[in-house]
Amino acid sequence: MAKKETTKSLGDEMYARCHDLFPICRSITGNGVRETLKYLKKILSDINIHEVPSGTKAFDWNVPNEWNINDAYVADESGNRIIDFKKNNLHIVGYSEPVDNILTLEELQKHLYSLPDQPDAIPYITSYYERRWGFCLSENQRKQLKQQKYRVKIDSTLEPGHLTYGEIILPGKSEREILLSTYICHPSMANNELSGPVVTLALAQWLSSLSKRKYTYRIVFVPETIGSIVYLSRHLEKMKKNTVAGYVITCIGDNRSYSYLASRGGNTLSDRVARHVLSYHDSNYKSYSYLERGSDERQFCSAGINLPVCSIMRTKYGCYPEYHTSLDDMSFISPDGLEGGYQVIKKCLQVLEANEVYKMKVNCEPQLGKRGLFPTIGTKKTTKNICDMMNFIAYADGSNDLLSIAEKTNVYAGDLIPVIKKLKNTDLV
Amino acid sequence: MAKKETTKSLGDEMYARCHDLFPICRSITGNGVRETLKYLKKILSDINIHEVPSGTKAFDWNVPNEWNINDAYVADESGNRIIDFKKNNLHIVGYSEPVDNILTLEELQKHLYSLPDQPDAIPYITSYYERRWGFCLSENQRKQLKQQKYRVKIDSTLEPGHLTYGEIILPGKSEREILLSTYICHPSMANNELSGPVVTLALAQWLSSLSKRKYTYRIVFVPETIGSIVYLSRHLEKMKKNTVAGYVITCIGDNRSYSYLASRGGNTLSDRVARHVLSYHDSNYKSYSYLERGSDERQFCSAGINLPVCSIMRTKYGCYPEYHTSLDDMSFISPDGLEGGYQVIKKCLQVLEANEVYKMKVNCEPQLGKRGLFPTIGTKKTTKNICDMMNFIAYADGSNDLLSIAEKTNVYAGDLIPVIKKLKNTDLV
Amino acid sequence: MAKKETTKSLGDEMYARCHDLFPICRSITGNGVRETLKYLKKILSDINIHEVPSGTKAFDWNVPNEWNINDAYVADESGNRIIDFKKNNLHIVGYSEPVDNILTLEELQKHLYSLPDQPDAIPYITSYYERRWGFCLSENQRKQLKQQKYRVKIDSTLEPGHLTYGEIILPGKSEREILLSTYICHPSMANNELSGPVVTLALAQWLSSLSKRKYTYRIVFVPETIGSIVYLSRHLEKMKKNTVAGYVITCIGDNRSYSYLASRGGNTLSDRVARHVLSYHDSNYKSYSYLERGSDERQFCSAGINLPVCSIMRTKYGCYPEYHTSLDDMSFISPDGLEGGYQVIKKCLQVLEANEVYKMKVNCEPQLGKRGLFPTIGTKKTTKNICDMMNFIAYADGSNDLLSIAEKTNVYAGDLIPVIKKLKNTDLV
Repeated sequence: MAKKETTKSLGDEMYARCHDLFPICRSITGNGVRETLKYLKKILSDINIHEVPSGTKAFDWNVPNEWNINDAYVADESGNRIIDFKKNNLHIVGYSEPVDNILTLEELQKHLYSLPDQPDAIPYITSYYERRWGFCLSENQRKQLKQQKYRVKIDSTLEPGHLTYGEIILPGKSEREILLSTYICHPSMANNELSGPVVTLALAQWLSSLSKRKYTYRIVFVPETIGSIVYLSRHLEKMKKNTVAGYVITCIGDNRSYSYLASRGGNTLSDRVARHVLSYHDSNYKSYSYLERGSDERQFCSAGINLPVCSIMRTKYGCYPEYHTSLDDMSFISPDGLEGGYQVIKKCLQVLEANEVYKMKVNCEPQLGKRGLFPTIGTKKTTKNICDMMNFIAYADGSNDLLSIAEKTNVYAGDLIPVIKKLKNTDLV
Repeated sequence: MAKKETTKSLGDEMYARCHDLFPICRSITGNGVRETLKYLKKILSDINIHEVPSGTKAFDWNVPNEWNINDAYVADESGNRIIDFKKNNLHIVGYSEPVDNILTLEELQKHLYSLPDQPDAIPYITSYYERRWGFCLSENQRKQLKQQKYRVKIDSTLEPGHLTYGEIILPGKSEREILLSTYICHPSMANNELSGPVVTLALAQWLSSLSKRKYTYRIVFVPETIGSIVYLSRHLEKMKKNTVAGYVITCIGDNRSYSYLASRGGNTLSDRVARHVLSYHDSNYKSYSYLERGSDERQFCSAGINLPVCSIMRTKYGCYPEYHTSLDDMSFISPDGLEGGYQVIKKCLQVLEANEVYKMKVNCEPQLGKRGLFPTIGTKKTTKNICDMMNFIAYADGSNDLLSIAEKTNVYAGDLIPVIKKLKNTDLV
Repeated sequence: MAKKETTKSLGDEMYARCHDLFPICRSITGNGVRETLKYLKKILSDINIHEVPSGTKAFDWNVPNEWNINDAYVADESGNRIIDFKKNNLHIVGYSEPVDNILTLEELQKHLYSLPDQPDAIPYITSYYERRWGFCLSENQRKQLKQQKYRVKIDSTLEPGHLTYGEIILPGKSEREILLSTYICHPSMANNELSGPVVTLALAQWLSSLSKRKYTYRIVFVPETIGSIVYLSRHLEKMKKNTVAGYVITCIGDNRSYSYLASRGGNTLSDRVARHVLSYHDSNYKSYSYLERGSDERQFCSAGINLPVCSIMRTKYGCYPEYHTSLDDMSFISPDGLEGGYQVIKKCLQVLEANEVYKMKVNCEPQLGKRGLFPTIGTKKTTKNICDMMNFIAYADGSNDLLSIAEKTNVYAGDLIPVIKKLKNTDLV
C-alpha cells in the first residue's frame, strides 16, 4: 500500500506542475520560455539556462527575432473583446506582428483560423519565419461574427533578443552519454507540451539522486526544431562522439496508449531498448516508423547528424483529435498517464545502465547446486527463475549483451538484473 | 488527348512491325535471321550485324551448321499438299534435314508431332543438334490422315555457313553498361518472339534519341541460347567488368499480365529496379524465381558468367497455353500489350539512370521555407509532395541510393526525380 | 521385398539389443554403466572404455563418488517386500545412500516419491550431489500404504571409484570431425535411454564398414551432464579445433514423431543438415528451440564450448507423458521407431559427407546433349531429373555448398549425389 501511494504521489506531483505551467504563453523565443525554465530550475537547480542571440547562425538556420506579447484582442463596435488573448493564449497566431487597426469582417476573415471539422476547438497556429498576424478561434464562434467594423489590436514585440534553452548534464562513470530531449515552446496545451518537460524533469530528479551512474546524461529543454538545431550546432562533435542512446520525450501525459516512434535507422540501441521495455510494459503499444516523425528526432536523426534517438510517447502527436487545439488541456492528461510515461522511460534507462556484454567465467554449465542456486534433487520440471538463470548462463558468451540475451531467451531484461547480481556474487560471470 | 494519341501510335507502330516480321521463317541460323535484322536496321541504322562461321567454338559449344529452307510438304497420293510449309512455317521441325521420299502412313507417323491436349494447335518443335526431320500439325488434322502412300519433300540445306546476330552500342558518360537482350530465332510466333525484338528496338530508338545517357547501352538481338553463348564468348571480359544491370526482353506483347523473373542471385540492382517499378506500375504483377527460368538469363546468370540480369515480361513463356504453338499469333498480342511492356522497361531504365547515392550538403533539416519549398504557416497537416521531399532529405545521407530511399520512404523512385532537381537547384544536395 | 526385409531386420536387431540392456540398473557411475558398455563392445570392438577417478576436476565440477547398489526394499511388518528394487530398479532414488532402519509410515512418507497425475507410473528420481535416500512408487501403491512400522533397507555403496565412458574414433581422410554423443546413465527406461546408445552403435557399425570416410567420427557414450563435462575437459582443444558438426542422440526409438532441437546458435551446419534432411524425411517433424534443451547439448553448446551440435530425436524428452517414468518401457519403443531414427541420422551423415562447395568447369550452360545428358529434341517440357541437373549446374558457382544448392533449388540434397557423380564423370564439375 505504501508503495502504491508513493507511485500515486509522483503522478500527482507531475500533474500539479503541469497545472502551474499551463497558463504561460510560450513560443520558440521570449519570456514564456524563460518563465517556464525558471519554474523547472526552482525544482531542480541542476538546470542551466542559456541565451542565444537572434541572428546567430545554426547550420542552415538563423536564430529568429524574439517574440513577446502583452495583449491581443478583436473587439466589436461596442468595444467588447470578442476574441481575447487573455482568455486563451491560443487565440493569437504565434509570432504575430503588432497591429492596431479597424477592419471590416471581410478583411478580418483573412486573418482568422478555425477548424470546420472541430467546431468547438481553437486551433494552434504559428508563423515563425514569415511576418504575419492572425487570430484563432472556434468555428462556432467564427460563425457568429456579424458584418461590422472590428478593432484589432496586437500588443506584441518582434525584435532582436534571444533564444532560451535549458540543459542538465549529470556526469557518470563514462563520458558516453544518454540524451533526453524535450521541448518548451508551445502555449497552453497539456499533452503536446507540458507532459514532456514535466516527465523529463522527474526523470532528471531520479537520475540526479542515483549514487552512481554508468553513463553521463545530457538532458535538454529546447524550443522545438530551431532549439534542437541551435543546440546541435553548439555540441555536435561531442554528441556524435559520445551519444549511446537517446529519447525525445513528448506527448507523454495521457492515459490512452503507449507509443514508440523509431529512429531513422530503426534499430539503434535506443530502439531496441524501447521496443523491449514497451513489449513487456504494455504489449499493445503502438509502433510508428520514422516516416511518421514530427518532433526533434527530425534533427537528431537527420542525414548529417544521425544520432541514435527515438521517441517514446503515450498517444502520439497527430494521432489524437485534441492535438494542436485548445482541447489538449489539463483534462486530457492525468497523474496516471504521466506516471506511466515516466515509468517506461525509467525502465529504459535502467536497462541501458545494465546493458553490457556478459561472459561466463567457466566452461560448460557451472555446478549451481553446490552454490545453492539449483535444487539438489532431479525431477521432471524446473522453475521459471532457474530457467532464466540457466538461459542467461547459456547465452552469456562474450558476444551477447543483456538485451540480446533477454530477447533470445524471451525474458524481460529488467528481470535478469537480480540474476546477474547472484552470478556476480558467486564469481561466475 | 494529344498525349494519349502519341502513346497509342507507339503501340500501333510496334504492332505493325510485328505484323511485317511475322511471316519470316527464322531459326537459330539462316536467312530468316538475316532478313529480320535487315528489317530492324532499316528502322534504326545503329544496329550492326555480325556473322560467326559454323564450327566456331564458344565455351562448351560450337556454332552449328546454317539451316535454310525453301519448301517442305507432305502430299497425298493425289498430289495434294496436305501439310504445307508455305501455309505455316511451324509445320516443319526446325533444322529438318532434306528429304524426298514416299512413305506409308505408319512410317510417316514417326516423323509427325501434334498436341493431343490442344487439338487445334500446330506445335513448335526443333532439333538443332541431332540430325532429324519432321512435320508438325494439329491433332485434328493428324486424325484425318488415311492409310495411303505419302510423298514427303523437304527442300532444305544444312551446311557450313554462319550464325547471325545484331548489336547496338549506345555510348554514355560512363563506360559502365546496361544490357538489353532479346532473341530472333523463332518462326511465325508473335508473343514468344516478335514482341521481344520489336519492343527492344523501340527502346533503342528512345535511348538513341536522348541528349545524354549516364550509362552505355549494349543491346543485342541474338538467337536464343547458342547466340547468347557466342555473344558472351566474344565480349565476356568487358561485360563482366562493366555491366551494372540488364534485362532479357521476351514475351512482352500480350495484355494479360506483367511478369518478372529474378536473376540467379535474386537481388541485383536489375532485380531491385524491376520489382520497384513493377510494384508501382501494376501491383498485381507476377513474380517468378530463377528456378522457373527459360531464356537467355540461363547464360547471363550462369555460374561462371554471373551478370546482374533478370527478365521483364507480360505473360511468361510456358505460362500461357498458346506458348510454342501456332496459337501464339498476331491476335494474341496487341498495341496496348506492346506499349505497356515498353513503358515498364523504359521506367526501369529511367530509374537506373537517376539511381545514385545522394547526400545532403547541410546538417539538420534545411530551412526550406526561405527557399520557397515549404509553407510558412504551421498547421496540422503536410502535403504528399512536401512529405516526399522531407523524406528524401532525411534519407539522403550518403549511404542510400535513390532506390533505397524510395523503398524506405514508400514512394515511386520516378516521382523523386523532380524532387532531386529542386534540391539540386537550391544547392542542398 | 528383399530390401524391405533387410530394413526390418535392422530395426528388429536394435530392438533386441534394447531388450537385452533394459534390466541393467545404470546410473552416472557404477557397474551398470560398465556392464552396458561391455555389451556394446562385444558387438563393436572399436569402443574404448575409459575410467576416470572420483574427485577428478572437470571445469566447475568434480567426478562424484561411485554408486553401486545390490538390493533395496521397504518391507511391511509381516516382512513382505512391498517396494522392491529387484522388481523395478526405478523404485530406488538414484544415488541413495545405504540405510537400514525401522520407520513409521509418517517418517517413511518423507522419503517416498510418486506422481499424483500419473497414478500408475513409478517416477525416475535422482540425487547425485546431495546425500539422500528415497523410494519411488506409483501413486496408487502409495495410497494403499497403511499405518504400521516399515523396515527400510538399502544395500548400496557410495565411495570413491570411477566414472566410466565409452569412445569410438573412426578416422577419415580429414582430421575434421563429426561428433555423435549419447548417454548411458538411466536405469530401466527404453526411449529416454536405450534407444540412444543402440541407434548410435548401429550408426557406428555402418560408419565403421565404409571403405572411405571424408570426416573422422568421434562417437561417445557418456553419463549425461557430468560425463559430457568430463569428456569435454579432456578433449576440448581438439574438439574445438576440428568439430564440423555433431548430434546428440536420445529419445530416438518411439514411432510417434520426429523432432529436432536447435543448437544454441541455431544455424550451424549441423542444424542446416538436420532441418533439410528432416523436411524431406518427414515434413511434419517438430522443431524445438535451444530454450527447450535438456541433454548434453547444454554442455556442447555452452558459452565457453560452443560446438556446432544439435539434437535429432523421435519424440522429445519431456514431450511424452511416459518420460522419466516406468511407462517408458519396451512397449513404448519399436523396431520401426528405432529404424526411422537410425535412417534420419544416417541421411544427415551422408549429406555431410557429400557437402562441399562445387564449381562448374565451363562458362555458360554446358552442352549436355552431346554428352547424352539432355534430350535432343526441343519441346514444351523438361523432366524433374533434367531440372535438378540444370539447377545444380546453375548454382554450382564456387560459392554454394551442396546444401545451399539443394535449399535454393528445392530438392533433397541426397538426390543430387548421383547428379554430381554424372557431372564428375563427364568432367563438368
